[in-house]
Amino acid sequence: MKKNVLKQQSTTSIGRTLRYFGVILVGIALALLGINLPANAASHPNLVINQQDVAAMQQAITEQGAFQDAFKAKLNQVDIGLNQSIEVPLPQDGGGGYTHEKHKRNYQQMYDTGIIYQLTGDKKYAEYVKNMLLQYAALYPELPVHPKRKNSNAGKLFWQGLNEAVWLVHTIQAYDFIYPVLTQTERNTIETGAIIPVALFLSEQSPHTFNKVHNHGTWATAAVGMTGYVLNKPLWVERALYDLDLAKKGGFMRQLDELFSPDGYYNEGPYYQRYALMPFVTFAKAIEQNEPQRKIFEYRDGIILKAINTTAALSYNKLLFPLNDAIKSKGIDTIELVNGVAIAYGLNADPTLLDIAKQQNTILLTGDSLKVAQGLDQQLQQPFTFNSELYRDGKQGDEGALVVMRNGKPTDQALVYKATAQGLGHGHFDKLTWQFYDQGNEIVSDYGAARFLNIEAKSGGGYLPENTSWAKQTIAHNTLVVDETSHFNGKVKQANKHHPTIHFYDQQQNLTLASASIDSAYDDVAFKRTFALINIPQREAVIAVDILSATSSQSHQYDLPVHYQGQLIDTNFEREASLTQLSTLGSDNGYQHLWLLATANLSQYQPRDSLARVTWLNDNGRFYSHSTLVSTNTGKHQQMLFTQLGANDPNMNLRQQTAFIYRVEASDHTFVSVLEPHGKYNPAKEFTLGATSNIAALTHHQQAELSAVHIRFTDGEQYLLAINHLEQALTEQNQSVININGVQYPFNGRAQLLGPLNTGSFN
Amino acid sequence: MKKNVLKQQSTTSIGRTLRYFGVILVGIALALLGINLPANAASHPNLVINQQDVAAMQQAITEQGAFQDAFKAKLNQVDIGLNQSIEVPLPQDGGGGYTHEKHKRNYQQMYDTGIIYQLTGDKKYAEYVKNMLLQYAALYPELPVHPKRKNSNAGKLFWQGLNEAVWLVHTIQAYDFIYPVLTQTERNTIETGAIIPVALFLSEQSPHTFNKVHNHGTWATAAVGMTGYVLNKPLWVERALYDLDLAKKGGFMRQLDELFSPDGYYNEGPYYQRYALMPFVTFAKAIEQNEPQRKIFEYRDGIILKAINTTAALSYNKLLFPLNDAIKSKGIDTIELVNGVAIAYGLNADPTLLDIAKQQNTILLTGDSLKVAQGLDQQLQQPFTFNSELYRDGKQGDEGALVVMRNGKPTDQALVYKATAQGLGHGHFDKLTWQFYDQGNEIVSDYGAARFLNIEAKSGGGYLPENTSWAKQTIAHNTLVVDETSHFNGKVKQANKHHPTIHFYDQQQNLTLASASIDSAYDDVAFKRTFALINIPQREAVIAVDILSATSSQSHQYDLPVHYQGQLIDTNFEREASLTQLSTLGSDNGYQHLWLLATANLSQYQPRDSLARVTWLNDNGRFYSHSTLVSTNTGKHQQMLFTQLGANDPNMNLRQQTAFIYRVEASDHTFVSVLEPHGKYNPAKEFTLGATSNIAALTHHQQAELSAVHIRFTDGEQYLLAINHLEQALTEQNQSVININGVQYPFNGRAQLLGPLNTGSFN
Repeated sequence: MKKNVLKQQSTTSIGRTLRYFGVILVGIALALLGINLPANAASHPNLVINQQDVAAMQQAITEQGAFQDAFKAKLNQVDIGLNQSIEVPLPQDGGGGYTHEKHKRNYQQMYDTGIIYQLTGDKKYAEYVKNMLLQYAALYPELPVHPKRKNSNAGKLFWQGLNEAVWLVHTIQAYDFIYPVLTQTERNTIETGAIIPVALFLSEQSPHTFNKVHNHGTWATAAVGMTGYVLNKPLWVERALYDLDLAKKGGFMRQLDELFSPDGYYNEGPYYQRYALMPFVTFAKAIEQNEPQRKIFEYRDGIILKAINTTAALSYNKLLFPLNDAIKSKGIDTIELVNGVAIAYGLNADPTLLDIAKQQNTILLTGDSLKVAQGLDQQLQQPFTFNSELYRDGKQGDEGALVVMRNGKPTDQALVYKATAQGLGHGHFDKLTWQFYDQGNEIVSDYGAARFLNIEAKSGGGYLPENTSWAKQTIAHNTLVVDETSHFNGKVKQANKHHPTIHFYDQQQNLTLASASIDSAYDDVAFKRTFALINIPQREAVIAVDILSATSSQSHQYDLPVHYQGQLIDTNFEREASLTQLSTLGSDNGYQHLWLLATANLSQYQPRDSLARVTWLNDNGRFYSHSTLVSTNTGKHQQMLFTQLGANDPNMNLRQQTAFIYRVEASDHTFVSVLEPHGKYNPAKEFTLGATSNIAALTHHQQAELSAVHIRFTDGEQYLLAINHLEQALTEQNQSVININGVQYPFNGRAQLLGPLNTGSFN
Repeated sequence: MKKNVLKQQSTTSIGRTLRYFGVILVGIALALLGINLPANAASHPNLVINQQDVAAMQQAITEQGAFQDAFKAKLNQVDIGLNQSIEVPLPQDGGGGYTHEKHKRNYQQMYDTGIIYQLTGDKKYAEYVKNMLLQYAALYPELPVHPKRKNSNAGKLFWQGLNEAVWLVHTIQAYDFIYPVLTQTERNTIETGAIIPVALFLSEQSPHTFNKVHNHGTWATAAVGMTGYVLNKPLWVERALYDLDLAKKGGFMRQLDELFSPDGYYNEGPYYQRYALMPFVTFAKAIEQNEPQRKIFEYRDGIILKAINTTAALSYNKLLFPLNDAIKSKGIDTIELVNGVAIAYGLNADPTLLDIAKQQNTILLTGDSLKVAQGLDQQLQQPFTFNSELYRDGKQGDEGALVVMRNGKPTDQALVYKATAQGLGHGHFDKLTWQFYDQGNEIVSDYGAARFLNIEAKSGGGYLPENTSWAKQTIAHNTLVVDETSHFNGKVKQANKHHPTIHFYDQQQNLTLASASIDSAYDDVAFKRTFALINIPQREAVIAVDILSATSSQSHQYDLPVHYQGQLIDTNFEREASLTQLSTLGSDNGYQHLWLLATANLSQYQPRDSLARVTWLNDNGRFYSHSTLVSTNTGKHQQMLFTQLGANDPNMNLRQQTAFIYRVEASDHTFVSVLEPHGKYNPAKEFTLGATSNIAALTHHQQAELSAVHIRFTDGEQYLLAINHLEQALTEQNQSVININGVQYPFNGRAQLLGPLNTGSFN
């Protein structure tokens, strides 16, 4: 079987070589332009998988292990497909519709059947792929633009050109797999009927998308570049790398320069980063196979590997952080990251990637995935490190950052502080928002995207109208809303021009801090937000501290929402609930989607220690208390509003979700809050422990660039979180002294958690 | 170590024998009354665990396996406890409060520490239990009735006498474990200070509870009866079995006669059945050890074993069906059922019980649980059979029934049809309601109980006011509500007097049916409901059919709600949504808790094929379509109302939950509906299949006692479910012929699914 394969390949190799001369003139022309020719253009397959990979895989499928299991499963699936007649329908439906899904299944089936041909050498598989390709070659030339096209980037087989590019990325690999068994006539038919027209449609005929520095551009350039390698069209490769005019204003290299920050953060967020990864890693792998001299994986300090690592790191309990437009069920086991992790492991054999691969639980039939399977079979995996980290945003790394604060194990507390740039069209108006996770669950959450992927009845499976009217609006996030308007007035163009300023990020044992600000989100309101994640091991306490200062020359309505996940248990203040009638909280900018469930007038309220506390119970069986300092005796009008999502939602598109919103009328106001996980509710085993908050009092002190939050626990223990906000970088050597009520508290570096304090009652 | 134990026991045995003579006179007196003396009263321990068990366990802990693991874990836990000082606080708090939880932990700790003493023979454990018992002996005599008592059945250590009984059930076993090492003086102190006063408090001083045929009575009689064995007070045992006056009007035997139906169904439902099981199996095991001649496990055709099996069977995906007052997180892994399954397995070695035990994943330190552990170590388990089954209700089995229809594997579809009696004080007004499950999840659901167990801030951890105002009301269930009033006007006393009539239950391959009716739930409305669960393997289709006929002499408002779990995807009719204002649907009987989200006027609506269809998407990734026949051209006013729970809920006690309600104004009306699981939504892998219903049309035909539901699928295939409603029992031999539009359809037995039909268009 193996011999058979090799024979075919060597026959082909000759044909290929002959063909090679046909492009020599082009090659010379390109050489004059300083462009290199592909190195291994004559051998097949040679994109993601090469002949050495095939040989190793042919060996591996004869031996017990994860790879053999994956092969058998795929073989079984492909064999079932082989018994079904080929259907290449006239394009008709949008996403989720029959013809859309059929064409998607077709390219996947061609890819799968093709690799099975490579591994078994059984020509019936190659035959099936060939026949399907011939049907595409017959269909494609006649196709008009897709009847259900939705935007400027239309396709022919699909409603979006994007899907067309994905089709070609898969199909060119399938073609590469069966190339050896095709006659020259068959190759001509397939290439001229399907592959070349699709590649031209994606490149010359869609210059805007092809040259765009955007993930649609990445798919298009990957498709065309890989096709260039297989069809031996070096110009196509060059265009894929450096744009249609080879002007380097667009193209794959420019995308690598601009779409990721130096820390491997993709500016649309992890959901689209995961999606964008696929063409990056696939095309990069093909480049590496064909032209290793380009050192693509070393490019820009190894940006592709960084991007893979960062995607895996931006997850909690296997799910990606839902930043910007993001469907929440996407996790590290998505096929794109399976591919990415395999290719990365193939390059660096990093045993912590095996930890991710183990959780992905998917082995692909590629040479790299074989190495992963062998690594897992040998149990070489080491824990992937989910550390606290600052991920700079912007191509230069100077457009804000995403900060992830982690506490210990992967499903321990995580605080995500989003001080990134806008993230283009998929970005949300959520400057300086946060999310909190604990024991595997979302606690303070982000709505993510309003979308039911591929469900025709829900706006054709695309983004719902409520994605714009709710999910993108500022009130849908856990950050400051001024006068019921969204950041940048909800204008993407405006938002793309600005980004937050990062003041500091500091990470110590048991204490992580970050501070950022933005003064462009509103015309005359600037706000600065500092988060700290504190761990006090001796109390088994973990606390998130949140200090948000808004300043303005005139009075505004400041709303600070907390979108909590769970059932409200209690508040330490009285709420006036709307019992028999509900109204919307507002009329625009997302407020029209909120029902006002209850209101508490905190101005009239004089709570003990001036804390307004809300306690809820999450499905994970823990209680969470959010305590906010109430500015008593300031004359400021202060309210706590309780809301539920669902108003102005005629098609019931929105998920029910609850929030409480701290509302203050003021020109300047500092919100100081702490979030505290506590206790355990276990109705199955019938016990409840620690259902009430352990925090008795909070005070906040500001003294020039120094600030401090004082925390008194219910058992009397007191701690002081002292912070130096100086703009310059601070080291452990810098000592500061904050004076509180006549007592001097010296501390070192950027910040320190002092305590338990020896003083008596502090307040 | 082992030798040491034996020595202690034999010493004790002598002391015990001497003591035995002291009660001989009582014994003679009882003998004259025809009452037997306990057989093995002289040995300790001899309640749930006897000396042979101890010897076997002592052996097992030296060998690797599940039992040794359980022992090590418990030993570790007990050792930690041993380092903490004993605290027996003055009773003060209600459920969930500190002293409540402390006393609960204390009895558990005494029990655990006592068994560790038995297994290790290390006296430090016995010493710890003794010291705690002595503290109880010092505290108890001084105690008044508990300050937070909530009902007539008050306790002293706890707010409820129920908890006091549970305390004694555990404590008497702990005392039994350490009895051998105590001096006579210590025994006297403990018995006279704590054990005897608690036992007397539970029996002589609480005659109403003790004699009550109710689970509180079971706990009390178990506690007192087991104490009778250990303290060698045969009269206490007799009283526990036959009531305080030995009149057999109450007591454990009467409870066994009355609290379970002949099929082992407990009339309060599985949630309380699980709870009630604990004292039943514990006391029964103690009776078996002490007086095997009573053949307690054979009593009433093995009712205790039936009850254990039935509890396990009344579950789905490990969780108990939430019927009546039920907290939904309770499952088959609750400690009560762990005990029950172990004791049952100890008696009958049924390998299917090991399947349940495996899922429970808890091994106890008892002789029976050791057998379970050994069975699991040897992998002897066989799948527990979750079959379709009718469980009769009522002590004679003639008070209605619970019908469970299952389709295939444990997490395949299950339809629960509740045609039971009321279930006393914890019963809900939900005659002929249903629930539906699929792929592990609730699809059409029951609210269960409105309660946060032991969370002080939520009505002290007890039942919330909304349990009465919402959870028990008819509208909270999936059954008929007439004129916005609940069944029996929401009066328990009235409800307890009536029950539905079961007309038939029939189970065939791929078809299960049941029919029941009730004419007492409303003054002048009778209703009959027939469910069928149909499996059509060649279509990979499973369909639930629901036919509900209401009849009355005058016109009423009939509401038939479906409490669906998931996100609404689509309806095939127009809804008029309340966009900016919400009002309550009604003012009483649960309606005051529903916000009216949207209304559809189905009278004006002339849908194709007259079906009103609602499709939703469950978290399990499947779509569910509920299609109801709309009676067009009848002049009946018909609406579909969409609601959300949460109105009139000042403390935000209710979970958000959505429903749609089919409302008809009529005197007679037959609701015909089908529920159909279909398709798959997988946003992680980015595919959506079969998002729309496969059912195109329904018609319903009635011809004297014969009826038929005709189903036409979207691909044109047609099926006819033909049913014979004759009251008499039918066999496969009975042939019926239903004539529909001039065509004769013969069918056999109670019902048959005919199809695919050969006719052309049927409608």
